[in-house]
Amino acid sequence: MTKARVVIEGLTPQVDCGRFPARRVLGDGIVVEADVFADGHDAVAAVVLYRHESETQWHGMPMSFLGNDRWQGRFTAQKLGRYLFTVEAWVDHLESWRRGLAKKYEAAQDIEIDLQQGSALALAHASRMAEPDASRLREWAHALADPVREREQRALLGQSDALHELARRSPDPRLVLRHEPPLAIEVERERARFSSWYEMFPRSAASSPGKHGTLADVEALLPYVASMGFDVLYLPPIHPIGEVERKGPNNRVGASPDDPGSPWAIGSREGGHKAVHPRLGTLEDFRRLLASAGALGIEIALDIAFQCAPDHPYVREHPGWFLKRPDGSVQYAENPPKRYQDIYPFWFECEDWQALWAELKSVFEFWIAQGVRIFRVDNPHTKPFAFWEWVIGEIRRAHPEVIFLAEAFTRPKVMYRLAKLGFTQSYNYFPWRNSKREIVHYFTELTSRPVCEFFRPSLWPNTPDILTEYLQFGGRPAFATRLILAATLGASFGLYGPAFELAEGRPRESGSEEYLDSEKYQVRSWNRDDPASLRDLIARINRIRRENPALRSDTGLKFHPVDNEALIAYSKTSGEDSVLVFVNVDPHHPQTGWAHLDLEALGLPADAPYQVDDLLSGARFLWRGARNYVALDPAGTQAHVFRIRRRVRTERDFDYFM
Amino acid sequence: MTKARVVIEGLTPQVDCGRFPARRVLGDGIVVEADVFADGHDAVAAVVLYRHESETQWHGMPMSFLGNDRWQGRFTAQKLGRYLFTVEAWVDHLESWRRGLAKKYEAAQDIEIDLQQGSALALAHASRMAEPDASRLREWAHALADPVREREQRALLGQSDALHELARRSPDPRLVLRHEPPLAIEVERERARFSSWYEMFPRSAASSPGKHGTLADVEALLPYVASMGFDVLYLPPIHPIGEVERKGPNNRVGASPDDPGSPWAIGSREGGHKAVHPRLGTLEDFRRLLASAGALGIEIALDIAFQCAPDHPYVREHPGWFLKRPDGSVQYAENPPKRYQDIYPFWFECEDWQALWAELKSVFEFWIAQGVRIFRVDNPHTKPFAFWEWVIGEIRRAHPEVIFLAEAFTRPKVMYRLAKLGFTQSYNYFPWRNSKREIVHYFTELTSRPVCEFFRPSLWPNTPDILTEYLQFGGRPAFATRLILAATLGASFGLYGPAFELAEGRPRESGSEEYLDSEKYQVRSWNRDDPASLRDLIARINRIRRENPALRSDTGLKFHPVDNEALIAYSKTSGEDSVLVFVNVDPHHPQTGWAHLDLEALGLPADAPYQVDDLLSGARFLWRGARNYVALDPAGTQAHVFRIRRRVRTERDFDYFM
Repeated sequence: MTKARVVIEGLTPQVDCGRFPARRVLGDGIVVEADVFADGHDAVAAVVLYRHESETQWHGMPMSFLGNDRWQGRFTAQKLGRYLFTVEAWVDHLESWRRGLAKKYEAAQDIEIDLQQGSALALAHASRMAEPDASRLREWAHALADPVREREQRALLGQSDALHELARRSPDPRLVLRHEPPLAIEVERERARFSSWYEMFPRSAASSPGKHGTLADVEALLPYVASMGFDVLYLPPIHPIGEVERKGPNNRVGASPDDPGSPWAIGSREGGHKAVHPRLGTLEDFRRLLASAGALGIEIALDIAFQCAPDHPYVREHPGWFLKRPDGSVQYAENPPKRYQDIYPFWFECEDWQALWAELKSVFEFWIAQGVRIFRVDNPHTKPFAFWEWVIGEIRRAHPEVIFLAEAFTRPKVMYRLAKLGFTQSYNYFPWRNSKREIVHYFTELTSRPVCEFFRPSLWPNTPDILTEYLQFGGRPAFATRLILAATLGASFGLYGPAFELAEGRPRESGSEEYLDSEKYQVRSWNRDDPASLRDLIARINRIRRENPALRSDTGLKFHPVDNEALIAYSKTSGEDSVLVFVNVDPHHPQTGWAHLDLEALGLPADAPYQVDDLLSGARFLWRGARNYVALDPAGTQAHVFRIRRRVRTERDFDYFM
Repeated sequence: MTKARVVIEGLTPQVDCGRFPARRVLGDGIVVEADVFADGHDAVAAVVLYRHESETQWHGMPMSFLGNDRWQGRFTAQKLGRYLFTVEAWVDHLESWRRGLAKKYEAAQDIEIDLQQGSALALAHASRMAEPDASRLREWAHALADPVREREQRALLGQSDALHELARRSPDPRLVLRHEPPLAIEVERERARFSSWYEMFPRSAASSPGKHGTLADVEALLPYVASMGFDVLYLPPIHPIGEVERKGPNNRVGASPDDPGSPWAIGSREGGHKAVHPRLGTLEDFRRLLASAGALGIEIALDIAFQCAPDHPYVREHPGWFLKRPDGSVQYAENPPKRYQDIYPFWFECEDWQALWAELKSVFEFWIAQGVRIFRVDNPHTKPFAFWEWVIGEIRRAHPEVIFLAEAFTRPKVMYRLAKLGFTQSYNYFPWRNSKREIVHYFTELTSRPVCEFFRPSLWPNTPDILTEYLQFGGRPAFATRLILAATLGASFGLYGPAFELAEGRPRESGSEEYLDSEKYQVRSWNRDDPASLRDLIARINRIRRENPALRSDTGLKFHPVDNEALIAYSKTSGEDSVLVFVNVDPHHPQTGWAHLDLEALGLPADAPYQVDDLLSGARFLWRGARNYVALDPAGTQAHVFRIRRRVRTERDFDYFM
């Protein structure tokens, strides 16, 4: 039982009833909305309360009325880490009174008693206020009730915005309701949302064929990576590789002595998750690579794969962390009837699970101490959710700038759960969404609530594990299409190179998504200067991304109908910046069609010309209205990436666009 | 930090994160769903736990897998009142083991160690079980590990459903997660969902014109009400009517001494909310009316309007319950610049608010003691939400069979909030949803989640306050259309009669929704035997409702496209029963069109004949396929209400339908 008559409902942003934070990046304006209402006709008032978790005092920001009982307020994310927010609301009798007074005054009714009522209400507010505000309000109250003053003057005084503004800060505390518990927002740095990743195997980085590459070779390739406009360079595991049960080329069981093995079979007598593979170099080499990359605006992302080769030091030092089979051997990984004898998973349900968790956390901490701030986490969906929530929470508390990319190609709810638990970015089904229908459906889901509040997709056309049939059979146009889709549909995207820019499309066998002679099991040598390389297109698209705020976020995505199933049209808008993309998803044939643009979503008038500049080709078109013709030919270009220029003024016979 | 690896998410039914119960009626199968999953490939298991609030022990019901990590279980609502439910889930190692064993066995792999692992798992389960189950499981464990037995026999034994079923009841408690806190279901009687209301003014019930009707006159009209098939007879307030500031006919200020006043201006020196107006009769008359109605299967619904006439005894006895104006007078109701000097609202923010709440609750209790179980609550949106949640909760705890209808024609969120707080049924915007587009949009919202979980619409084409323009201008066909829509779109509907069946359509003035010479302010006399009365159509539609389970619930509503904006098609399905309705919403012109039926929703094959029987006219049609022609003419009939008969068998040249 309570006397407070106001109701607060439907607070947003909110993920799973407040169980998880919504995510934003530094500098974002955080828009908070709630349904706020009371019984009857009384006015209500509401404020957003917010604070960074490191603060003890709440900040208040008045909310404004949107219509249909919905209220909105906003604050700015000025610090990394977690913010808490809630809404406080109350029945605002003084405001109800003001509205009634205005109507009665206009209807020429007697307002003498109303003025006295307002005066009493103002005095009540004054009694809850400090000086000098209290005195100001008291003066107002007396003036309202003063029969010597003219009716009209007092009616006007009753409408004073400044005095109502003052009074509103001191509602009757017995009438105030606060939404409990507060909700949370996780604030990360901008790269959490907007990033361009390039993946490469250091051991294939040598400048001459047949040589095992080193971290120094990677350092030498940094200008190549930077020239394409990437800001994250992601390296598969750089640790010693197990020798026991090592796999040979093309995942063959039984390696020959000079086969390098899979980097994901981590650990040997040379060390485990905190060591650098001797053939790649030293920890010092690694720190030098980090520094050189940083000088070019590139961050190094490390791969964290929590699993062990049979000869990983953990297996000997912590036998309790691994499940034993009845014959005393360690349980290797399996997905029956498949067996992975070269991989020992950790036993997360073991008696010593707390020590195991602590050790795994220390792996992150070790690399953070070397300067790493981005981790790509291998198969997080095969380790407990509770572990991830804990470890990411602990790491972020000390280092809120750390970014985690979840490599969980699994069922949708599992992927979403990992994102909710704290993973900054997530791999997703993009590689297998190739038709227009699939793309529209999937990206509508990803950019709508609730998913967009917690899940940040990173779009990869290929990875060392994924060479899709679309790329296998589509040739260079297929690579161009997938690159442009990834880089413009997603604020974060990545490529596995040089396989991508060299349009490597040969699978290990028909029907397989594995690369032939995959770098996962052998050293490869690449001709990075191949004139057919897509590196110039990649460089251009990354420049377009940097120059257009609309492409630096996943909000504001809007699909537009085209009367051809092979042509996709979509736009992204951020403030004044609107980018409109047309892509031909057929890598074999020219396709033409008529688009019907949603002009309102593009901020364009229904019947005035506007200019579209193709940022890929430099071509410009003058369009008018919603219906426009598009032709895209794999022999030429697979896409238009238009910047929309709205007409700002007409001067004599010239139109100016911005 | 926890060792339990399972996750439970997205539990349904759920209203506002569990803040409010979902609603069902007695005998409903309550379907509970949740996303249940763990990391990795391990199997999971889940049970629904449920109990009536009066029980202390949980009942468990295993859930089954639906796909996409969704699980479903169900239980039956067997008692009125509140049920609690939750989901418990765990990683099921024995089931994971069984699946792996099957795959390995089929792949002809060595399973000796696997059989030993299974044996150990079974023994662990046995250690948590009571006899004789524990012994049974131990025997199984030993047989699995027994090297003397044949591999095939042991592999088969490992798949035993019975033994897995047994073991599943004893999971390792350290791995079990329970969703907390439990969620709630409010279970009401069937009339909460399925009811046909008739509203009439007792004072207009006299058999001869000019006389003030009595409760005895109402009793005499019960056969008339029953003949139309209604099961709830709702009476506007039957209490003494205030004499101070009484309104005259057509809401005129200043009544003459013999004007009866508005029944909603409650209270005079003759008594208040617990008294019967002397001109209507006595409390004893009222109890006799209840009994006579009950004998005909009709319940009496009373109007509860928490407001007072100036001469209500409360005003004198509890001056603190009313807000005073600075001149010492009581604050009458107002919605500036409108003033209602004949109505004093209660002051819910007064110091003595707890005593006020208690007294208002006692009003319900008084009438419950007389035998009333249904209340129509007047303007609940002008009294505090917290009050309703409290008072309905208190009443229902003692009398879970009581039904509350909310008369809140106000903003959507306010209406929904009242339903969440406990109102059984709600008036809604149906009176003003007259076009196909409006009807499809509104009823899609009402019958979809989340609204359908807490809001039960009661559909009224007219009320004493609402004579829509559609009825004013549409004549008899408009009344027929609105009747059929109300009675088939809504499991609960109501009519204000005899104004409705006599197609009374004259407004007080042009542009007003008030009736001319409204019964709200004067006694009216009606010719109930008018041959043009709609009573036969009403009787028929109420019989159709009783005979078709599909019309007794609001779930299963589906709209079907028709290529004419004046023709609406929709179906309701419950089990085998499917009713398909076509309505012409144009009361002036014949309309024809082609419907495209969703055959799957109707449980019909794509290419076989089916029969549609018009339950209104008796006509039968043999249809085939989705596309069918419909013609409806206001001169004849405004609607088809088809029962669908599916072909059950073909015998020689005859088709039989059921």
